[in-house]
Amino acid sequence: MNFLQDLLSSIGRRTRGQHLFGGEGSGKPSSLARLTSVCETLMHPGGEASQILIAQEALERYASLGDSDRVAFFQLLGERYAAEPDAIHQAYAAYRDTGDNASLQRLFSACEPRRQHLLRRLNLCPGGTYELVKMRADLLRCLKPHPELAPLDSDFEHLFASWFNRGFLVLESIDWNTPAAVLEKIIHYEAVHAIGDWSDLRRRLDPEDRHCYAFFHPATGDEPLIFVEVALCKGIPNSIQTILEGGDEVRPEEADTAAFYSISNCQAGLRGISFGNFLIKQVVQELKRELPNLEKFVTLSPVPGFAKWLAAERESGACQLTDEVAGGLDAGGWVENAKLRDKLTPEVRGLAAHYLIDAKRDNGLPLDPVARFHLGNGASLHRLNWPGDTSENGRRQSHGLMVNYLYELDRIEQNHEAFSREGTVVCTSDIRRDAKQGRSRCRHGSRTDA
Amino acid sequence: MNFLQDLLSSIGRRTRGQHLFGGEGSGKPSSLARLTSVCETLMHPGGEASQILIAQEALERYASLGDSDRVAFFQLLGERYAAEPDAIHQAYAAYRDTGDNASLQRLFSACEPRRQHLLRRLNLCPGGTYELVKMRADLLRCLKPHPELAPLDSDFEHLFASWFNRGFLVLESIDWNTPAAVLEKIIHYEAVHAIGDWSDLRRRLDPEDRHCYAFFHPATGDEPLIFVEVALCKGIPNSIQTILEGGDEVRPEEADTAAFYSISNCQAGLRGISFGNFLIKQVVQELKRELPNLEKFVTLSPVPGFAKWLAAERESGACQLTDEVAGGLDAGGWVENAKLRDKLTPEVRGLAAHYLIDAKRDNGLPLDPVARFHLGNGASLHRLNWPGDTSENGRRQSHGLMVNYLYELDRIEQNHEAFSREGTVVCTSDIRRDAKQGRSRCRHGSRTDA
Amino acid sequence: MNFLQDLLSSIGRRTRGQHLFGGEGSGKPSSLARLTSVCETLMHPGGEASQILIAQEALERYASLGDSDRVAFFQLLGERYAAEPDAIHQAYAAYRDTGDNASLQRLFSACEPRRQHLLRRLNLCPGGTYELVKMRADLLRCLKPHPELAPLDSDFEHLFASWFNRGFLVLESIDWNTPAAVLEKIIHYEAVHAIGDWSDLRRRLDPEDRHCYAFFHPATGDEPLIFVEVALCKGIPNSIQTILEGGDEVRPEEADTAAFYSISNCQAGLRGISFGNFLIKQVVQELKRELPNLEKFVTLSPVPGFAKWLAAERESGACQLTDEVAGGLDAGGWVENAKLRDKLTPEVRGLAAHYLIDAKRDNGLPLDPVARFHLGNGASLHRLNWPGDTSENGRRQSHGLMVNYLYELDRIEQNHEAFSREGTVVCTSDIRRDAKQGRSRCRHGSRTDA
Amino acid sequence: MNFLQDLLSSIGRRTRGQHLFGGEGSGKPSSLARLTSVCETLMHPGGEASQILIAQEALERYASLGDSDRVAFFQLLGERYAAEPDAIHQAYAAYRDTGDNASLQRLFSACEPRRQHLLRRLNLCPGGTYELVKMRADLLRCLKPHPELAPLDSDFEHLFASWFNRGFLVLESIDWNTPAAVLEKIIHYEAVHAIGDWSDLRRRLDPEDRHCYAFFHPATGDEPLIFVEVALCKGIPNSIQTILEGGDEVRPEEADTAAFYSISNCQAGLRGISFGNFLIKQVVQELKRELPNLEKFVTLSPVPGFAKWLAAERESGACQLTDEVAGGLDAGGWVENAKLRDKLTPEVRGLAAHYLIDAKRDNGLPLDPVARFHLGNGASLHRLNWPGDTSENGRRQSHGLMVNYLYELDRIEQNHEAFSREGTVVCTSDIRRDAKQGRSRCRHGSRTDA
Repeated sequence: MNFLQDLLSSIGRRTRGQHLFGGEGSGKPSSLARLTSVCETLMHPGGEASQILIAQEALERYASLGDSDRVAFFQLLGERYAAEPDAIHQAYAAYRDTGDNASLQRLFSACEPRRQHLLRRLNLCPGGTYELVKMRADLLRCLKPHPELAPLDSDFEHLFASWFNRGFLVLESIDWNTPAAVLEKIIHYEAVHAIGDWSDLRRRLDPEDRHCYAFFHPATGDEPLIFVEVALCKGIPNSIQTILEGGDEVRPEEADTAAFYSISNCQAGLRGISFGNFLIKQVVQELKRELPNLEKFVTLSPVPGFAKWLAAERESGACQLTDEVAGGLDAGGWVENAKLRDKLTPEVRGLAAHYLIDAKRDNGLPLDPVARFHLGNGASLHRLNWPGDTSENGRRQSHGLMVNYLYELDRIEQNHEAFSREGTVVCTSDIRRDAKQGRSRCRHGSRTDA
Repeated sequence: MNFLQDLLSSIGRRTRGQHLFGGEGSGKPSSLARLTSVCETLMHPGGEASQILIAQEALERYASLGDSDRVAFFQLLGERYAAEPDAIHQAYAAYRDTGDNASLQRLFSACEPRRQHLLRRLNLCPGGTYELVKMRADLLRCLKPHPELAPLDSDFEHLFASWFNRGFLVLESIDWNTPAAVLEKIIHYEAVHAIGDWSDLRRRLDPEDRHCYAFFHPATGDEPLIFVEVALCKGIPNSIQTILEGGDEVRPEEADTAAFYSISNCQAGLRGISFGNFLIKQVVQELKRELPNLEKFVTLSPVPGFAKWLAAERESGACQLTDEVAGGLDAGGWVENAKLRDKLTPEVRGLAAHYLIDAKRDNGLPLDPVARFHLGNGASLHRLNWPGDTSENGRRQSHGLMVNYLYELDRIEQNHEAFSREGTVVCTSDIRRDAKQGRSRCRHGSRTDA
Repeated sequence: MNFLQDLLSSIGRRTRGQHLFGGEGSGKPSSLARLTSVCETLMHPGGEASQILIAQEALERYASLGDSDRVAFFQLLGERYAAEPDAIHQAYAAYRDTGDNASLQRLFSACEPRRQHLLRRLNLCPGGTYELVKMRADLLRCLKPHPELAPLDSDFEHLFASWFNRGFLVLESIDWNTPAAVLEKIIHYEAVHAIGDWSDLRRRLDPEDRHCYAFFHPATGDEPLIFVEVALCKGIPNSIQTILEGGDEVRPEEADTAAFYSISNCQAGLRGISFGNFLIKQVVQELKRELPNLEKFVTLSPVPGFAKWLAAERESGACQLTDEVAGGLDAGGWVENAKLRDKLTPEVRGLAAHYLIDAKRDNGLPLDPVARFHLGNGASLHRLNWPGDTSENGRRQSHGLMVNYLYELDRIEQNHEAFSREGTVVCTSDIRRDAKQGRSRCRHGSRTDA
Repeated sequence: MNFLQDLLSSIGRRTRGQHLFGGEGSGKPSSLARLTSVCETLMHPGGEASQILIAQEALERYASLGDSDRVAFFQLLGERYAAEPDAIHQAYAAYRDTGDNASLQRLFSACEPRRQHLLRRLNLCPGGTYELVKMRADLLRCLKPHPELAPLDSDFEHLFASWFNRGFLVLESIDWNTPAAVLEKIIHYEAVHAIGDWSDLRRRLDPEDRHCYAFFHPATGDEPLIFVEVALCKGIPNSIQTILEGGDEVRPEEADTAAFYSISNCQAGLRGISFGNFLIKQVVQELKRELPNLEKFVTLSPVPGFAKWLAAERESGACQLTDEVAGGLDAGGWVENAKLRDKLTPEVRGLAAHYLIDAKRDNGLPLDPVARFHLGNGASLHRLNWPGDTSENGRRQSHGLMVNYLYELDRIEQNHEAFSREGTVVCTSDIRRDAKQGRSRCRHGSRTDA
């Protein structure tokens, strides 16, 4: 549908203007006072005639503010752009009396913070959406010292959840024919296994046995929202180094397994808007369509909380390791020392299985964030790989362990149900056996909390 | 930015699937009961794993419902997908006590009808946005016999105002290189001066002296939302027939005036989401950029309420015409009879000016909807053209009168202010003089109401 | 490969300028003398600096010439832009002596008419290629009264065969999302079964059971070179009216046969550059890929020379029909009269099979041009359909007969060989039997010539 | 014109297949014998039915040949694919007798080496054009040891001159939004001032003050043919280091000069097909249109033959330098030593001006290849910059000298004429004065030859 391509070229022209914002070159006085007054004009029903220009001025002025002025601006949004208490009281009284939909509707309207209206107005301007995403990133950075701004953040989240609805996202394959400007962002945003340079990137985009997919939103143009990197393998991979170093290239027609080995959220300003679940499942479908030979879809995932948890267990005395095991883990010599590795293997697998299956937060969900994500998506815990990541980071975070989660489209629903209802971690019998062994090393076999 | 074109081609593939919906061919039982149950699953937090497929099934089932089942479905949305009264009462109590942003936020969340959540979930599915627009069009058709559904409509409107925010729209030029599938829709949606056939359309897209622009939304693909037709002229045009029949072609470099002679909203389901204001102003800017010779931007607009208003004035005795004038207007012979036309000219201009300036609704805005729209956008009332439209429809609606509204970018703001604050109709001194004359024919010179 | 799309948009900008040529609006004196002098400058090795502008001027001046001046221009090309006899004589002498490749090369260079160099220079200018195609179309129209221009035409053909090499062509699917400007050309160029209007076109592009493909060349932009229309059918179709009237729609998944029912060359100026063979075979491959259910690829073709041949045979007495048969064919009442139709059926089939198999030109190839084309492509003669075309044109040309040629990719090669070496018309045994019967009606069973 | 973008995406699909060729992976026996036989089949008029597949096989087999087999293949083309001597003799006899266009045409046909026909047939296959370009690159590498292959090279050149006619090329802007695959080629093909890495490239594509343009051909897809790098400057730049190191950034609106500082041919196989002249002039026009503030278009060019010429002059005693000058130049210490630099300046300028103006080849054109190119394009010699290039390469080639050639569109024609007719080097009076001074250092002031 060529016509749509044309649509997007217009969007292109539009979003390219984004870099105009925020420069000292705009030459406008960057006083908070002026921004405040511009926002007031923008809310004015009488300001409709030139809302786009006013929105643009507001965003430019915001961009030129310093950090403390931005906090002041957020506070002002909290104070002045709440809702009318009297209107709420009246609307509530009517709702209380009738309880009908009409009165509910009026109460809902009365309660909507005026901030949301302001944010929608700011979005009128070309490139405005991305400016607002960056504004929320600023806001999130201020939340710790300024917890009073949390409700303002809820307004952003409420709007973004609507604007960045899955129905508006576009899945794109990222490859060596992608514009350099986008690839540069991929290098920048990779959050799991850093991309060293362009050669490293090129290896990860090798059309023979690598794929990369990202979600984009038409209004934020060529800014990726989230992306996932995939390696085609023969069998389920057990080492991230083998993948990153490209040691086991396979021809597309030989590959029977797609391994998702890195997934990165790109926009700090979109925290809480979840894309990963949709991305993985759509990529599974794309790959199935393109490469009918693929039989298995797994991840090769880090276990970022394992080492920290184990340290705490040992500290508290809940978990007791022999000196040899404890020393081996702490010294880390197992990378080179095969004998030590053999010794440690059953211990590490046991403890890790125990951690992944039994260590839970108060809400009954796994302590490990990556486990939480994939199990929540309906994947199952498929295999523990040790050593799976011999990098320094891998050893520090998880004593070198990596995990495969398995995505089986026809099991996703029931896995997810079991997990979300009862906290069941669906896994293989091997892992269950490992966990049993792990539990025996620890005083308690049940939930822990960080 | 080629990359973005690629984005849109993905959207293309996605939205092309839209016609799959709603056919009897889908082969699924179209019972309301099943739809209800699917919606319930979709709301279930445990249903995340396959939300997209569930949303798709829900939309397919809705599409295959008959009219009465659709009403029943809407009613059910009203009943079952409201909000939790208890949660509202508690949240309100907290808000009443503290009045702070955190409690406001919780109250707002408690009040949000669950319908809105359902609609966002339905939107997860490819092509879902357009299905929801059509669903609201269905709903609007039911509102008269079922006024209880109005709050549900407010939910749609609230969501659509956010989703179809100007910041997400794309302006596209429509010309003879546009896909036939889109042009066919233009023919279909033209609402002011019907397009007879493809030859007629081709004339209106003549690159020499005609332009057409439309807004699109990436998620609704090649469905135009609103479009405007423009004729390039030498001087301000005074007759719609001259434009439609193509009698006064000018070379682009000779043209000094762009005349907006038709503007049509395309999607019944987007009623209340206003695009026209933004469209006209952006087109003015596009044309200025492309054709620096253009000096004036005017409309050539109908006056759809004039004849009806005049009839009511005469009926009530408020306005008294001489027999000659009354007879001439009623018989309509002035199209051919030049003498009669000369006779009637001052009378019609006077009454029309009086109508446009003085006839107001209760809220102080002009009775005439087209006047309300353009004056509200900040245009001024620039010239009365009589006869300006000799078609049967033109004579019936407005005794053949057409009006030019003038868009001057540097006056728009103040015109709009004067209009929205005090109801002032900015116009030329000629028209003011005409209005004075018109008032003298009527007992009262002030506001009227329909 | 988005990048390539951008390439083409540049070509788009370039080729859109084509309509600038040839108008009286160019304001330049259209004298042949000036054109001649411009061409001389263009050939000048010293003219390189601004060749593009000079080429543009030359093409504009040519476009503004009247018919007789164009003939004069062609004659002048013949006279002044031949080759240097002395250079040829010398080069030949050297070649005669050595016979080596170096001397052959020099002889070839010496023999190349300077016209070819001029045509390549004219092509430097944006849009020049299409102007040259139109120039040759002019030339071809003059060949009959001016046979002396034939060598000039050979120069065009030699260049175009190189420029329009299959390797440079692009196959495009034509559908309802194609720009109206291209669809309008399709309506215009359809040469087999006229397209009445846009509704008729729309039926032929119905995505359910119709396809249309065209070849384009990047340098001639959106001008189709040749296109073919395809109907998806259940079984091999036997009536063109059924296809054109859309009476037998099938769902894509039910269709087992693709019928090529119309193939049209679009550019008179490309006569002799053969595209049809490549087009059909590539379309067969495209369709196979897209619709794996398709089993048979046939044509539904006219037999344009049948009626004329039969008339000549009867005239000469070679073929003798009974009065009833002769009368039935001549009166044409068989369309309505089923009895007569039954009577005529074996006669028509016999004569037609005899015509298609036995009637040959001097070079041993079939008299019928459509048979020559498809059999030359390696298709086989598969079925005679009578009546297959009840339109007036169908009855006049071929007494209502239509023919299916069958394309079997794995037989194409050997069919073609048999046909091109020995003139063998590969056909079914049914048709061979018919032909035997047809021969018995005619005095001679062997070759005839028109 | 969206439609054209679609055309190109088809080309994209097609050309992407190119990498399929030439791998050992193709699994076919790579014998020369089989290639020979496939070529024979391809020439066979009876082979039409599946020419595309046959052409593909031929190109694949060629690609898998080793170097010596390729030479053997070229020799075989020379021997077996020449022309028919008898046909030539007959055609010549007829031409000698009549001398008319018809007989010329037949002689031309008879002389065309069959190789050209073979090459056109090989081009039928998707991606074939680029394979043929690479084949000629192979051939060119063999010419020195195998001068007998020169006529075969003429056949390639003759065809490529026609296929790569300026009218078929597409100018594209290269920037940071260009696909990485194309940018990688730019890095690879840069031939004047090497691009170190991706950061270096990014600096050269800085949208603020840098531009890069390339010619592409639709049939060779994303392979650049030639590209030029441009720096926007305030005033005419005098140092390549300043440009390469990005030391003098200017805002686009301040720039008054566009400096072409690097131009690289990319395809060895297109030697002799000249693009540079067209590229520079079209880029001048593009830049003028985009940036109306630009007043001057100059190059900043190396003088690659200067040092070698001077060495020869000194060697032969024609040019005699004082010990100080000779020593300073040879030692190269002037980069750091300002005093020495001042001393050398008039000497270097004088000798360089003398070299550029007076040193000629036998054909009267300048000895310096860069001077020959730009002066032949109609530029004038505008300024000598010393030191203009302090890199090691710059000092070795030209003792650090760089030159500005000036492109003035309205002088190009007459400059070119003067240059091509009389060898006149159009230059400023300053440079003429320098040259006079330079001549005085040398025994002869006139032409020299290498």
